[in-house]
Amino acid sequence: MKFGGTSVGDLERIENVATRVKAAVDAGDNVAVVVSAMAGETDRLVSLARAASPMHDAREYDVIVSSGEQVSSGLVAMTLQRLGVNARSWMGWQIPMHTSGVHGAARILDIEPALLKERVTGGQVAVVAGFQGIGPDGRVATLGRGGSDTSAVALAAALKADRCDIYTDVDGVYTTDPRIVAGARKISRISYEEMLEMASLGTKVLQTRSVELAMKENVRLQVLSSFANEPGTLVCGEDEIVEQELVTGLAYTKAETKITLIGVPDSPGTSAAVFGPLADANINVDMIIQNISEDGTQTDMTFTVPVADHDRAIAAMDALQSDIGFNRIVSDKNISKISVVGIGMRSHAGVAAKMFRALSEKQINIQAISTSEIKISVLVSEDYTELALRALHTAYGLDGPQT
Amino acid sequence: MKFGGTSVGDLERIENVATRVKAAVDAGDNVAVVVSAMAGETDRLVSLARAASPMHDAREYDVIVSSGEQVSSGLVAMTLQRLGVNARSWMGWQIPMHTSGVHGAARILDIEPALLKERVTGGQVAVVAGFQGIGPDGRVATLGRGGSDTSAVALAAALKADRCDIYTDVDGVYTTDPRIVAGARKISRISYEEMLEMASLGTKVLQTRSVELAMKENVRLQVLSSFANEPGTLVCGEDEIVEQELVTGLAYTKAETKITLIGVPDSPGTSAAVFGPLADANINVDMIIQNISEDGTQTDMTFTVPVADHDRAIAAMDALQSDIGFNRIVSDKNISKISVVGIGMRSHAGVAAKMFRALSEKQINIQAISTSEIKISVLVSEDYTELALRALHTAYGLDGPQT
Repeated sequence: MKFGGTSVGDLERIENVATRVKAAVDAGDNVAVVVSAMAGETDRLVSLARAASPMHDAREYDVIVSSGEQVSSGLVAMTLQRLGVNARSWMGWQIPMHTSGVHGAARILDIEPALLKERVTGGQVAVVAGFQGIGPDGRVATLGRGGSDTSAVALAAALKADRCDIYTDVDGVYTTDPRIVAGARKISRISYEEMLEMASLGTKVLQTRSVELAMKENVRLQVLSSFANEPGTLVCGEDEIVEQELVTGLAYTKAETKITLIGVPDSPGTSAAVFGPLADANINVDMIIQNISEDGTQTDMTFTVPVADHDRAIAAMDALQSDIGFNRIVSDKNISKISVVGIGMRSHAGVAAKMFRALSEKQINIQAISTSEIKISVLVSEDYTELALRALHTAYGLDGPQT
Repeated sequence: MKFGGTSVGDLERIENVATRVKAAVDAGDNVAVVVSAMAGETDRLVSLARAASPMHDAREYDVIVSSGEQVSSGLVAMTLQRLGVNARSWMGWQIPMHTSGVHGAARILDIEPALLKERVTGGQVAVVAGFQGIGPDGRVATLGRGGSDTSAVALAAALKADRCDIYTDVDGVYTTDPRIVAGARKISRISYEEMLEMASLGTKVLQTRSVELAMKENVRLQVLSSFANEPGTLVCGEDEIVEQELVTGLAYTKAETKITLIGVPDSPGTSAAVFGPLADANINVDMIIQNISEDGTQTDMTFTVPVADHDRAIAAMDALQSDIGFNRIVSDKNISKISVVGIGMRSHAGVAAKMFRALSEKQINIQAISTSEIKISVLVSEDYTELALRALHTAYGLDGPQT
């Protein structure tokens, strides 16, 4: 059971967490709990560290910031004890949870679960400080922001847990953003692959790393609300999903920008000349579209990058204008990427056609298309984001009862 | 160099601490630093723990509360690095500093200084989180409030340091309370024994435990201000004190209360009947005065206890009235204990006589007297505390230049 910062935000919420854990224990489960820092605490500690030294040593940063989870783990263990539940806190170095040496953004390498597992199977609840481990240098290493989800999945794998429940402030994964589409439904089961497409495309429920790890280690993940008493969404292998929908959900993001190089030479080596320098500058290019040239000499090349990288991407291209030999650059931040995701589309044709038809009926112009095995993404003008999502949600039969 | 909570109370003060440490490093010293939690932080964490569970597990309390020193050690190390000083933080478990298993009030058992010493002698400043170690159970153990002084002395002993500088918010140990006696002077050198008498008698500069440990391990302690640039008071062995004053200082406390049992049988076993039960109730009896009985059958017995224990002491005596066989109890909280302290009095007579004469000249009635090898204490009415201190300070020639 993993509880995020909001779920342990104050003592009243910690009591709520402890009550939930107690219910699981009373139902006969052996439980390990992973906790984040109390909401706001990590930000406070990060601010202190930044103010102390703008170019700080990541090892000292880890010492400071990891204290947030340390405090919550102690408080949750204490509260469980008060409710009569046998519990103790564990810090990363105590388990130990070994990580790489990249302080501030470490990766979990190996967990030695023997001692902790002995206690847990003996009926003691382990309350583990998330987000932290011990590096090869024997010092505290943190996993980077949001790393507690990864801690939980890694621990669940090491303990061979039946399930890893991620308690958060939403009650599950929805077919699309319920703030936009009133008929959005909570998905009861979703495959790891679909979840990865949904998450990386803008549905920020689980850290991408934690889903990747869950897929690799075959950990069944449940996303559910710590403020409600109902099942959430189970993220699991495809074999557990009996009735595969054609489309499981719709994701969108407004955080990309479209850049077009006009008048690029239609010759071998042009793509390398454009995308090599962008990769060197650590700019993550998402979609790439190259039109067929009319006369065989010149064409236009379009790609998308995160909005935050727009200026750096433009600067990189400007610097290479004469080398690459394009005429001019046009960029457009007013775009939105809409994606339909579903493992069902592997075995069904017509999913893309249905998408194009639905958008066309609403007079929405598609500016670019990219596809993968379980996903089709289109770029549209940002103004049409909501309209497109609603039209597609209905077209794929995802609408639930109006709420 | 040990810095208390006020000295690391905010980032500006931490910068001041780092500047001081840098000056020592620049002067060629190899330095280990011990830090407390930022002022107010321990109180905040203790409140959280108490609110989470009034009868909390001391092991979880330690997990929570020790995070305060962890954060300061990281911040101080970071700030030193920013100033160009090679530094790293150390938590108790990393050194390791082994403690007893009494969580919340653990004692330091053993420090394995090899790794830390290698770094320190190699020129890296060790910034050690005070107040914490690792218990025999492999979990964080704290030393009890104010334990950082003890951490510093123990570390200085383990490192065979030339000196242990305790930076605090006063600039040294004074001949008496400067708020009361304008002519009070800073003592340049004081012996461990004298310091223990001064500290336990109400001059709260150093934790008693830390002075005891320094005496045992022969660690030279300096008390000085982190806000001024001048030498403080050196607490050392008598052999280092060349010119021994007759009286080194005057201490006082208003925190005791006087209890008199009137009409106690003057027979063997009475003292045991009175003080046995008080000891059993963990009440620390300080002075005991038994008058000679006039007729050989009954006498009065007076003793002092901490004000906080007054009610419990009275209750214990009330319960035993018939067993002990006294007539009635009189108690007086309006008292003050004044003590003159000095190793010089071992070899000089007349110190007590001078005290009684000085008090008598001011018409101050002495209610009780107790002496040790290097101390004479008297009980007087609390109203005369200031007058008595001034008179004695002058009588023993302690007055410095008026400030």
